[in-house]
Amino acid sequence: MFLTDRWDEMTEGMMRVVIVGGVAGGASAAARARRCSEAAEIILLERDGDVSFANCGMPYHIGGEIVERSKLVVASAQLLRRRFRIDVREQSEAVSIDRAARTIRVRRLADGSEYELSWDRLILSPGAAPVIPPLPGITATGVYSLRNLVDMDRIRAAVEATADGLRTAVVAGAGFIGLEMAEQLVRKGFVVHLVELQSQVLPPLDMDMSVAIRDELIQQGVRLHLGRALKSVTEQSGCVSGVSLSDGTQLSASLVILGIGVRPNVGLATACGLETGPTGGIRINEFLQTSDPHIYAVGDAVEYPYGPTGGAARVALAGPANRAGRLAGEHAVCGVSAAFRPVQGTAIVRVFGQTAALTGLSVRAARRAGFNCRSATVIAGQHAGYFPGAVMLTLKLVYEYPSGRLLGAQATGADGADKRIDVLATVLAFGGTVRDVAGLDLCYAPPFGSARDPVHQAAFVACNELDGRGAMLDVDADLSGFQVVDVRTAAEVAKAPLTTRAQVTAIPLDELRERLGELDSSRPTVVSCGVGVRAHAAQRILLQSGFREVLNLTGGATLRRRVVPTADSESTGGQS
Amino acid sequence: MFLTDRWDEMTEGMMRVVIVGGVAGGASAAARARRCSEAAEIILLERDGDVSFANCGMPYHIGGEIVERSKLVVASAQLLRRRFRIDVREQSEAVSIDRAARTIRVRRLADGSEYELSWDRLILSPGAAPVIPPLPGITATGVYSLRNLVDMDRIRAAVEATADGLRTAVVAGAGFIGLEMAEQLVRKGFVVHLVELQSQVLPPLDMDMSVAIRDELIQQGVRLHLGRALKSVTEQSGCVSGVSLSDGTQLSASLVILGIGVRPNVGLATACGLETGPTGGIRINEFLQTSDPHIYAVGDAVEYPYGPTGGAARVALAGPANRAGRLAGEHAVCGVSAAFRPVQGTAIVRVFGQTAALTGLSVRAARRAGFNCRSATVIAGQHAGYFPGAVMLTLKLVYEYPSGRLLGAQATGADGADKRIDVLATVLAFGGTVRDVAGLDLCYAPPFGSARDPVHQAAFVACNELDGRGAMLDVDADLSGFQVVDVRTAAEVAKAPLTTRAQVTAIPLDELRERLGELDSSRPTVVSCGVGVRAHAAQRILLQSGFREVLNLTGGATLRRRVVPTADSESTGGQS
Repeated sequence: MFLTDRWDEMTEGMMRVVIVGGVAGGASAAARARRCSEAAEIILLERDGDVSFANCGMPYHIGGEIVERSKLVVASAQLLRRRFRIDVREQSEAVSIDRAARTIRVRRLADGSEYELSWDRLILSPGAAPVIPPLPGITATGVYSLRNLVDMDRIRAAVEATADGLRTAVVAGAGFIGLEMAEQLVRKGFVVHLVELQSQVLPPLDMDMSVAIRDELIQQGVRLHLGRALKSVTEQSGCVSGVSLSDGTQLSASLVILGIGVRPNVGLATACGLETGPTGGIRINEFLQTSDPHIYAVGDAVEYPYGPTGGAARVALAGPANRAGRLAGEHAVCGVSAAFRPVQGTAIVRVFGQTAALTGLSVRAARRAGFNCRSATVIAGQHAGYFPGAVMLTLKLVYEYPSGRLLGAQATGADGADKRIDVLATVLAFGGTVRDVAGLDLCYAPPFGSARDPVHQAAFVACNELDGRGAMLDVDADLSGFQVVDVRTAAEVAKAPLTTRAQVTAIPLDELRERLGELDSSRPTVVSCGVGVRAHAAQRILLQSGFREVLNLTGGATLRRRVVPTADSESTGGQS
Repeated sequence: MFLTDRWDEMTEGMMRVVIVGGVAGGASAAARARRCSEAAEIILLERDGDVSFANCGMPYHIGGEIVERSKLVVASAQLLRRRFRIDVREQSEAVSIDRAARTIRVRRLADGSEYELSWDRLILSPGAAPVIPPLPGITATGVYSLRNLVDMDRIRAAVEATADGLRTAVVAGAGFIGLEMAEQLVRKGFVVHLVELQSQVLPPLDMDMSVAIRDELIQQGVRLHLGRALKSVTEQSGCVSGVSLSDGTQLSASLVILGIGVRPNVGLATACGLETGPTGGIRINEFLQTSDPHIYAVGDAVEYPYGPTGGAARVALAGPANRAGRLAGEHAVCGVSAAFRPVQGTAIVRVFGQTAALTGLSVRAARRAGFNCRSATVIAGQHAGYFPGAVMLTLKLVYEYPSGRLLGAQATGADGADKRIDVLATVLAFGGTVRDVAGLDLCYAPPFGSARDPVHQAAFVACNELDGRGAMLDVDADLSGFQVVDVRTAAEVAKAPLTTRAQVTAIPLDELRERLGELDSSRPTVVSCGVGVRAHAAQRILLQSGFREVLNLTGGATLRRRVVPTADSESTGGQS
């Protein structure tokens, strides 16, 4: 017990730790506190009936992919009581905190009665609440958000009760929960309308990376309504019959799922004078202590230290909550623990046959945060192309210019996105650069990767740009004004022309050196190929043949056609 | 061309780069040199007919998993000539180097004639040669090693020519190539005898991690002969008919594959006075320059800087060769490049339905290198247990004690080993600790991981040990002399008892606090459960209840039964 020395004011064995909220870190805190101290009294207050469950699994139970509901119960109250000797009190709402007296007022939801509880250490895990916009009809039966098992059971019952021919749903919000719900409802035979205020799905991604997910949703039959807001819910006899959108669109639906974000439950904390930070979350230090060092806070209601900016971020995800809870539980009973490491904003979602994953800052977020940043995007096999089952992965690195420090990464593809983003999240944790990424020694055998993994390839692109060897042009750039050279073979060009209003000169790479005379070396030139590899070779040839400015179109015709589907849709400026 | 400034003694445009050997880095060097310099003359000498091919794919073509042979040709001579303007000279052997004159003597293998070639920069990529032990009968037809496409074609032809009833093969060496060949030969209907001098398969792994692969091999019908050497090859009319092993075993077989290691081809380098290092590989600096700065060396013949020890290591793998070649090509023509980053010894192999992957040092290797090290092993799902398709992954971290610096990691399992080892190889690259690992922010959604990923769980075990909260005992330890407590349920214990000759007291974890009186708190105690999680809880209870010494058996009964299959096989000392 040498680790408890620092709590010198405390009589060992007398300590009481009260934890508010089991989900999102609270149960982890309780378990860890017990493992660190058999002597402490540990009380866990939970407003709901379920004290710890896998909220990330809820959409999959609604869709039937996770069959047994019981599997979602991570730690039952019984387990916490029996194994961890936690005094679990369900249906118990924390009403107010008296910091001076070190007490908390608790309401029994069953009968409304209240009582005071004293504490030596308090750990707050109040979570976050779904945002419910105050729209006409929003309280109609059939409008749901998905916060806990009660919500899940209601939605599942509504899904099962809907007759086959009437299965139409509106999902508001194309973020992580929205996409998971859209997928699972399609699985249940629903026609799904996905409504998103932003002009793209998955707003945490850059637009150019989100298009792969958009295309997958469309291909799976999801009806997208991007750049539109839910305006009102129409009801018949108190039940949802449809919605109207901000552009006047009317949609019939018997089910509306709200996935438009969450708001941290900070009321209890702010009412007793605890500080919140710029993001609106409870402010904490590296030991999860709030502005009152005897009160800790973890989970969706806090703002964590955020690696890429050195600032703070709210992350409503289970991973950070779990780690934070564990450390808070330890620190509360021991007085010392390891420091909580900054979050990187790492997240992932499966969308039918595709995956989207990200860590750190997108280009958009990096610019908003004031970084001079650039990006490098590659389209490459998730494993050796010569081995069966190779599928394409699109990987984008965002890095600070000219230091090369990695700021973030995004990946989409059918396989292998999680691995690359985990590797890059690890690089972020160490403040590494794209040169570090280029030098990583990763697993390679044909079934698992390539001698040049996509993370290496992307890093090579970035290093070339840093070294002045291969400047890139954003995939959605307006190409007019440039001399545009497509260095693919004639057959490739014919099959999938580069989408631009600009005139394109097609010269296959292997003929480029002999046909330089067909180009004007004084003009700013853009080279493009299938994904950018041959274009880099062409760029090198041109730059060393007297061409002044040569840019490589990011992702070549493949990515261009995803982002700029027709020549007419070419941007007239602006960058992704 | 600002990057060429440093080669001030050189007249641009006059430079000639000669590269010896295309495979294992040479072709990468050639391509990169060209991208960095259109002006340089680049000559690639290749002794064989194929200048660049995916040697990692060869076993899979033999087994028919990669159907088209042409897919293995990564960069044809034609491509290198046409696209990169490389002067490719196949069937051309480098005979000797005159460093003072800066010339190389080349023999045309077609007619034996020789000529001199001058160079400004020389890049050596001579590769490595399979070790062929000088055994009786070793030159018989039917004994093969697998170095290049010619070997592959021969083996494939031999496989196809063998009648169904006669398909028996001996594979000597249970390393990476040996295991891949064993798998592919089973795929082709062969009875496969796998002979390995060490007492375990995959000697780079610790014994306790290799058993999962051993068990998979046995289950797939491979006949293992561990701890035995090939003694002689028996032949009939010049063709293999079988082998005898060091223990007298006679095996009939029509095919023998040698996979017992490679020897770096350093002859050309040492003959001209270039230095080799302690591992026998060509000594290089961070820019791949040999002891003669105008001569570079890359690939299987060199010794790379090795991250975990700060020393050097030979790594005959495509990833480092590719990266080294790329940098050497750049540095040769530009005079500057990024530094080559140390290798971590990251490697992976698929063995039927299992994967084994590793990076850095095993416990055995770490001890040999003089480290005071400990390890942490967990058995955990590759993704959330409540999501369909979860399979168990065994992950072992090796770290320096008490600094916590990560020294290496090993993983086995049906899925997800590559991702974890890539993440941990990245931590190694930054010299990170197990505390860094515990704080990583990794992707989590039910199909991809867990809120507590196996890498976190393993790091938690290590941190507990570092903090004096949970000392571990090696899985194969002799338990006699300990008070052994199994905290699983009675049903679990009955189904899979802990394999030990020691007496075991079974007390389910949830009853432990009430039944402490059944144990002797003064005795050194070992706790065990299914995989180690409940045992940790038990350990914490006992340690805080007056027990002096409590150790948690690594991997619990699950790993114990793999490593110590019966009580009688219990070690009488010694550690894995």
